[in-house]
Amino acid sequence: MDWDIHAFLKAKRDGQSHRPGEIRAFVQRLVAHQIPDYQTAAWLMAAFLQGLGQEELLELTLAMATAGTERNEPPLFAGTLDKHSTGGVGDSVTLLFLPICAASGMRIVKLSGRGLGFTGGTLDKLDAIPGFRTDLGLRELHAIADQVGCAQGGQSAELAPADKILYALRDATETVEHPALIASSVMSKKLAAGAESLVLDVKWGRGAFMTDREAARELARRMVEIGTGAGRRVAALLTDMNQPLSHAVGNALEVRAALDELRSGCQGRLGRVAVALAEEAAQLMGAAQTDVGEAVRSGAAFRKALEWIEAQGGRIDPHTPTYGLPVAAVQRPVYADEEGYVVGFDTRGIGEVARRLGAGRLSVEDVIHPAVGIELHVEIGSPVRSDAPWATVHAQNAASAEEAAAVLATSLELSESPPHPSALPPLVERP
Amino acid sequence: MDWDIHAFLKAKRDGQSHRPGEIRAFVQRLVAHQIPDYQTAAWLMAAFLQGLGQEELLELTLAMATAGTERNEPPLFAGTLDKHSTGGVGDSVTLLFLPICAASGMRIVKLSGRGLGFTGGTLDKLDAIPGFRTDLGLRELHAIADQVGCAQGGQSAELAPADKILYALRDATETVEHPALIASSVMSKKLAAGAESLVLDVKWGRGAFMTDREAARELARRMVEIGTGAGRRVAALLTDMNQPLSHAVGNALEVRAALDELRSGCQGRLGRVAVALAEEAAQLMGAAQTDVGEAVRSGAAFRKALEWIEAQGGRIDPHTPTYGLPVAAVQRPVYADEEGYVVGFDTRGIGEVARRLGAGRLSVEDVIHPAVGIELHVEIGSPVRSDAPWATVHAQNAASAEEAAAVLATSLELSESPPHPSALPPLVERP
Repeated sequence: MDWDIHAFLKAKRDGQSHRPGEIRAFVQRLVAHQIPDYQTAAWLMAAFLQGLGQEELLELTLAMATAGTERNEPPLFAGTLDKHSTGGVGDSVTLLFLPICAASGMRIVKLSGRGLGFTGGTLDKLDAIPGFRTDLGLRELHAIADQVGCAQGGQSAELAPADKILYALRDATETVEHPALIASSVMSKKLAAGAESLVLDVKWGRGAFMTDREAARELARRMVEIGTGAGRRVAALLTDMNQPLSHAVGNALEVRAALDELRSGCQGRLGRVAVALAEEAAQLMGAAQTDVGEAVRSGAAFRKALEWIEAQGGRIDPHTPTYGLPVAAVQRPVYADEEGYVVGFDTRGIGEVARRLGAGRLSVEDVIHPAVGIELHVEIGSPVRSDAPWATVHAQNAASAEEAAAVLATSLELSESPPHPSALPPLVERP
Repeated sequence: MDWDIHAFLKAKRDGQSHRPGEIRAFVQRLVAHQIPDYQTAAWLMAAFLQGLGQEELLELTLAMATAGTERNEPPLFAGTLDKHSTGGVGDSVTLLFLPICAASGMRIVKLSGRGLGFTGGTLDKLDAIPGFRTDLGLRELHAIADQVGCAQGGQSAELAPADKILYALRDATETVEHPALIASSVMSKKLAAGAESLVLDVKWGRGAFMTDREAARELARRMVEIGTGAGRRVAALLTDMNQPLSHAVGNALEVRAALDELRSGCQGRLGRVAVALAEEAAQLMGAAQTDVGEAVRSGAAFRKALEWIEAQGGRIDPHTPTYGLPVAAVQRPVYADEEGYVVGFDTRGIGEVARRLGAGRLSVEDVIHPAVGIELHVEIGSPVRSDAPWATVHAQNAASAEEAAAVLATSLELSESPPHPSALPPLVERP
């Protein structure tokens, strides 16, 4: 088609919708390195401020899912489920969701990225399990899913090359936090991965990338819109990330907490979110008669987790409290100066403390220390006494434990009375 | 100051005003090549869409006028006048304005750029005069102005280096046509040139960069706002550029038409615009008793033009109709197919025809042919007969003359009756 970057920029600058084919032409040239970065950056800022309509967003996402690959359309694996979380502090839902779905008779192959900044990544968490292989190819992952029902692999950089280019520029130009642009980035990778059904866990709150509930709602709506437009089955839930979702933040600690939660029947916040998402998945997959709750209560989901981890090479000892996972050199309890009830956490701050302990990375070169992190012994509403630790720091040495404890002291918000349940947002809701 | 490009981009993206000092910090880093182009491009698009307030615009312009030079503040030459036109087809006002002001007792040193696209540049026009030197330094120009009252030089690329960087990126990212950004670009160069008083000729219409009258009004308002904020005396007039301002388009032809207009007392559109601007200048300079009209009527302005041209090395023969200027090889009259009254011109199209004849350039490497161009024998309201040419093409050869005549045939708009004067916009008005 007759395409010109100047007319393209001018149209979005002036708030017009791009005509069909124009966004695809842009993305194809982008992947062919025919568009200078400054023109792409100008378009991103214009799109951020002027918005993208439904048709434009679908075209952008489909183009990103295929441009630079050998396909014209993204692949489609019938009967396969995928899940995506927008990420947050202590978000280890995937570690529960996979075995719960598999134990309920669904088939799921999930690809994840690594963590960056204050949130961890599923691959980093699984890497904390001795022997666990996250470097399997798609063929091996599907073979494991055929046998166990679920498999978890890493996301190849070449899955959606246009997204890689756009994301790097968005990061440099303050155009990351836009529902349409986030939606196209996430969905381009999910479409490229090929699952027929997709469950979205859209997090909001103080420990999520999106702190605003309405922005998260908009993001959820737009992701569902794209997925449905691309012919996939998609459901989304909004989940509350104002406090760490797990009682642990850190890789081995989160694996341990996830296994504990599965073993004890998913009564905690983490388990309830995983079960709610698995129930959405069962509906999407047309497995309405599947009893997700029964798979959890009967212990089948916990046994499936052990089976899955073993199938991917991981070595877990279910007969010790630490499951044989690595343990940090130093455990340092953290006490509150005052007593009261927990009314809030600086959740993002807690994520940053964990990262500084070595649980995450600021740049892709940073090395992860699997055993470090923070255990939380309270949640919002819990009483806090000055003679019982509300958290435990797991550190490589005493100095970094002290530093972490000092920052954590400022992360806990107490009040004389507990918050009324009606004042708290729902843990899970529809967008 | 504590400055961060991410916070800077985020602020403008979110429609906030930059705090004092932030824009200056940006421009200083820009000139030091510390800001990647894609971040500058994102800021330009955000500023284009979110706008710049009065304080921000003044800071941007002053920073552009000084960043990368050895000054902290722009220079200020007391008692010196400058003029700027936003440019248009057949806009040779400067060639009249300089000698009119000088003959009225004012002192003016003007720096101009070269033409690009459908408009010509003053330097290209003066280069058509045999021997005329446009390559004089500021010291030589001021010496000539001391003696004659006026001087015209070229604009050094280093006058406002930040503008050069920003302009190139604006051109590539469709962020040129914004009143605030245009105003800061123009005014940064004018402030850097140092005149105490400045008259702005803001053109609008079919032969100007700004076709929209209200956008031109906004541009004028913002340029005056900046100049006044920077402590200069500034006045602006809006002038109608719906038809070519001169009866000629092309370098030597425009010099000839300008001298004819001065000699005959400035009764035409070109002369009236020049006189109106000179009267504004006299007011600004506090020379209220100066009789600009008398300087024109008495012939003093015409004699001053000859004196000025001679002072800059130019050789003019006032005793021949062509003033000794170069004459093109081919003159080709253009007739209308029908008869009627002129109600409009494709003014920009006429500028493009002149450029293709060799009167202007598309890229900076193009060579100018001084003698080529178009003479117009009619203006809006004139009767057109099929047996009298309405234009004459001056070309290097018959082929290019034919091509030009063919395009010109589509550039004239006729009607059975002349337009009523009240339906025409004012030639000159206050913004």
